[in-house]
Amino acid sequence: MKDGKVYPGNILKVDSFLNHQIDIALMDDIAEELYDRYGEMGVTKILTIEASGIAIASSAARVFNVPMVFAKKAKSKNIGGSVYTARVTSFTYKKDYDITLSKSYLGSEDKVLVVDDFLATGSAMKGLLKICKYAGAKVVGVGICIEKGFQPGGKEIRDMGYDVTSLAIIEEMTSDGRIIFR
Amino acid sequence: MKDGKVYPGNILKVDSFLNHQIDIALMDDIAEELYDRYGEMGVTKILTIEASGIAIASSAARVFNVPMVFAKKAKSKNIGGSVYTARVTSFTYKKDYDITLSKSYLGSEDKVLVVDDFLATGSAMKGLLKICKYAGAKVVGVGICIEKGFQPGGKEIRDMGYDVTSLAIIEEMTSDGRIIFR
Repeated sequence: MKDGKVYPGNILKVDSFLNHQIDIALMDDIAEELYDRYGEMGVTKILTIEASGIAIASSAARVFNVPMVFAKKAKSKNIGGSVYTARVTSFTYKKDYDITLSKSYLGSEDKVLVVDDFLATGSAMKGLLKICKYAGAKVVGVGICIEKGFQPGGKEIRDMGYDVTSLAIIEEMTSDGRIIFR
Repeated sequence: MKDGKVYPGNILKVDSFLNHQIDIALMDDIAEELYDRYGEMGVTKILTIEASGIAIASSAARVFNVPMVFAKKAKSKNIGGSVYTARVTSFTYKKDYDITLSKSYLGSEDKVLVVDDFLATGSAMKGLLKICKYAGAKVVGVGICIEKGFQPGGKEIRDMGYDVTSLAIIEEMTSDGRIIFR
């Protein structure tokens, strides 16, 4: 409420603590909340997408005591072998791109907690969930720092049957810059 | 030694534990090592570059109990206001790009530990160090997970007067795939 800044175009700038400068104690608190919810469900892997999901995924992986893996937005020549691929549309950058994940790091034996900093249109998250489906991995849940409740992603992903935990859900960002939580 | 894979073109693939799938316990151990070296030097901020530096930076920020901030490889419309910019050449992707950091998160009052997963040509690190110079911030040290000692970055940055700590320095990767540490 104090540090989030509202910009025209329904943009919420939280780069003082979430996705540019990062408050690690906050990440750890969020990870503990996710552990309270999913800690007894046999999670074997934390999955996210670069770049701003990595910090929260790191904290979650520590608490769950499992590896984390992040999908990449460009195919690096450093990812050898075969990969899972899904198409994502970026709300922030206004373009489509493919995300990739090496098949070595996600398989049908995995129980996955998928995390990200934001859930808005849900395009990135749907890409991650597709990758889990291609891998045959079970998605235990989806953990989100901030969900824009006025955008369709959260509802669509819940309607697909996934268990989504958003630590903050924004109902509205007003034209005078106030943030109203659900 | 066991998990790193050598590919043609002096590429070292460590994506099972360092920059795709990530072993958080290893990140924490590396962070502790960096704290042993730089813990008493008044570090106020951990700086890295997206994406694969973020996990080690998160662990370091926790141990040093300071915020971390990561430079971005593309200018997002979510970064408002003025930014520091430096030009970087990617060895992995064979292209030039600008990295940016909001001026809000680095200033002349800061004492910075700059961290990254790899140091090879040093282009990304030199970009981060330029940004610290533009900000007037003091660089306490540079912490690296794996340095390719046969590439010039490490020597060049030490010759510039920076204190570089690389947890592993590779002297040579042989044509039959062996990794020889310095």
